[in-house]
Amino acid sequence: MRLDAPAEGEGALIERIARRIGQASLPDAFRLVLGIGDDTAALQIGEQTLLWTADMLLEGIHFRLDWIDPASLGWKSLAVNLSDIAAMGGTPVGALLSLALPAERTGAWLDALADGLAECARAYSVALLGGDTNRAEQVVIDVSVLGVVAGRPVPRSGARAGDWLLATGALGGSRAGLHALIAGEASAIDLAPHFRPIPRLQVGALARELGATAMMDLSDGLAADLPKLLRSSGVGAVVYAAQVPVHPAATHWAQAHGLDPVAFAIAGGEDYELLIAAPPPVAQRLLERVPAETGAPLAHIGEVIAAQEVWLQRADGGRESFAITGWDHFRA
Amino acid sequence: MRLDAPAEGEGALIERIARRIGQASLPDAFRLVLGIGDDTAALQIGEQTLLWTADMLLEGIHFRLDWIDPASLGWKSLAVNLSDIAAMGGTPVGALLSLALPAERTGAWLDALADGLAECARAYSVALLGGDTNRAEQVVIDVSVLGVVAGRPVPRSGARAGDWLLATGALGGSRAGLHALIAGEASAIDLAPHFRPIPRLQVGALARELGATAMMDLSDGLAADLPKLLRSSGVGAVVYAAQVPVHPAATHWAQAHGLDPVAFAIAGGEDYELLIAAPPPVAQRLLERVPAETGAPLAHIGEVIAAQEVWLQRADGGRESFAITGWDHFRA
Repeated sequence: MRLDAPAEGEGALIERIARRIGQASLPDAFRLVLGIGDDTAALQIGEQTLLWTADMLLEGIHFRLDWIDPASLGWKSLAVNLSDIAAMGGTPVGALLSLALPAERTGAWLDALADGLAECARAYSVALLGGDTNRAEQVVIDVSVLGVVAGRPVPRSGARAGDWLLATGALGGSRAGLHALIAGEASAIDLAPHFRPIPRLQVGALARELGATAMMDLSDGLAADLPKLLRSSGVGAVVYAAQVPVHPAATHWAQAHGLDPVAFAIAGGEDYELLIAAPPPVAQRLLERVPAETGAPLAHIGEVIAAQEVWLQRADGGRESFAITGWDHFRA
Repeated sequence: MRLDAPAEGEGALIERIARRIGQASLPDAFRLVLGIGDDTAALQIGEQTLLWTADMLLEGIHFRLDWIDPASLGWKSLAVNLSDIAAMGGTPVGALLSLALPAERTGAWLDALADGLAECARAYSVALLGGDTNRAEQVVIDVSVLGVVAGRPVPRSGARAGDWLLATGALGGSRAGLHALIAGEASAIDLAPHFRPIPRLQVGALARELGATAMMDLSDGLAADLPKLLRSSGVGAVVYAAQVPVHPAATHWAQAHGLDPVAFAIAGGEDYELLIAAPPPVAQRLLERVPAETGAPLAHIGEVIAAQEVWLQRADGGRESFAITGWDHFRA
């Protein structure tokens, strides 16, 4: 897969809007560190850098209320934003919650949603600072999170040839849950990866501290997200198929359906694991310290190359186009 | 109308969620100045105070696409948030745009939306720093704005007995436009107050600088919003009916439909004018300087009293319960 073509899709849409709006000058106390195109915006104020992100979840698009319980939905709506803060190496500060709800969801259902959100907020020390509630026919949840990082956040754009690529946790678990729900076989699989993603805040902070060059969270799947990081950095990569950490639920689901587990896993969205690029000495320290200090598994999944293309390298030495492997299955 | 009963409705819902979430401690560099219950959250960082707000607009609830053109919708989606920044006496810094759109709205329609948003962003020096776009069956726009104020923002809670109440602009213009649209008589009325509200940023900053004690923006109508400010401050008020600035479109519409123009105007939402409480000497300075320096009309509409009740005083000396005057018409 070549990487020098312009990006399309969701990111491109917001960039098109931003181009029509143009640049505005910031008040004196502020300096723009990162604008559109990274996991969060970053604004320097004094010696602190603010991180700022928002993510909208819509009923019928991102979730179905007959599938997900309200507490898990509350957890997830905050966790996906914290994952963006983690991807910059930052610490969350507070959240705003914009909510649209049908009248029948304002009682016990809303309390359960709040409790799930609270569980996530307490786990990662996030204050709820405000919000906006509206009546609507379908549930819409838009959480905005403000975070902070002392010094420079880790952008998507810093990866250099020779860097190692690392991934936290295991991939494809969320997709396995989603496929099981679609197939009506949810009882056969662990739904926690799909319902309760874990924002990797400690890992992100450690990676920044030790000198990671680029980082992002895997919200759309490695096959879709890695090209974004590479394109942003102006480099390419080889990914070692045998070293991609596949979630047990993904292996189980893929094998039961005659699919290749690695291909299934890298095309799976919503894992919210971190993808990290770092020079080999930094990567080696991360591979030692991250599991020991944060409890999160960390795998060395590939290497950054100068050529702007991305390959999946099989154990037998054969190479496949990463995008085709990913996207064919994703579309299927 | 007595004011010592607990508040109900939208604000109460977000407070109920916040109670279930509880307090979280902020990172060392931050101090919470104002949390839930004001126009924006306020966080002190160094010598700056950050202001942070978000407002969600939903198709079918807040707007109809056969009524509002996309450029006006773009303007309004940002302007309503800037109005919250104005209500604290702050200056906007940047915005995040979360957007859900049907596929048929991603072309020229979206460009027009972006252009309207851009017009507002340029008029008030706001940078678009990021966003999130999603496909959906109906349009949802959630804009989050970050602002800043050097020193203390003006809260809703600072009004004291003896303060004068001031209001910018004229009231009821947005409601007149909405009623004309509902009646299919839009050509008969100026729709600008409904489609293109003016955030009163200069007025808010001047009011803060000169020493206003309390401030909020009129998004739900004076009849609904004044009680919020008074309840938050633990005081009451008398409003002089003859001094309420009624928008010409509201006068026109009310008279054509046999309604009292003042009652119609104070029950009208979405004017996004500022309601300001200030000690008389400060209020007098504002009444001189605001029209001269910002071009915005400013009216002395009433006085804060110690008793926790609110009255509308007629020119003939008679008093009416403010809430009933407002809400009856609003419900009608």
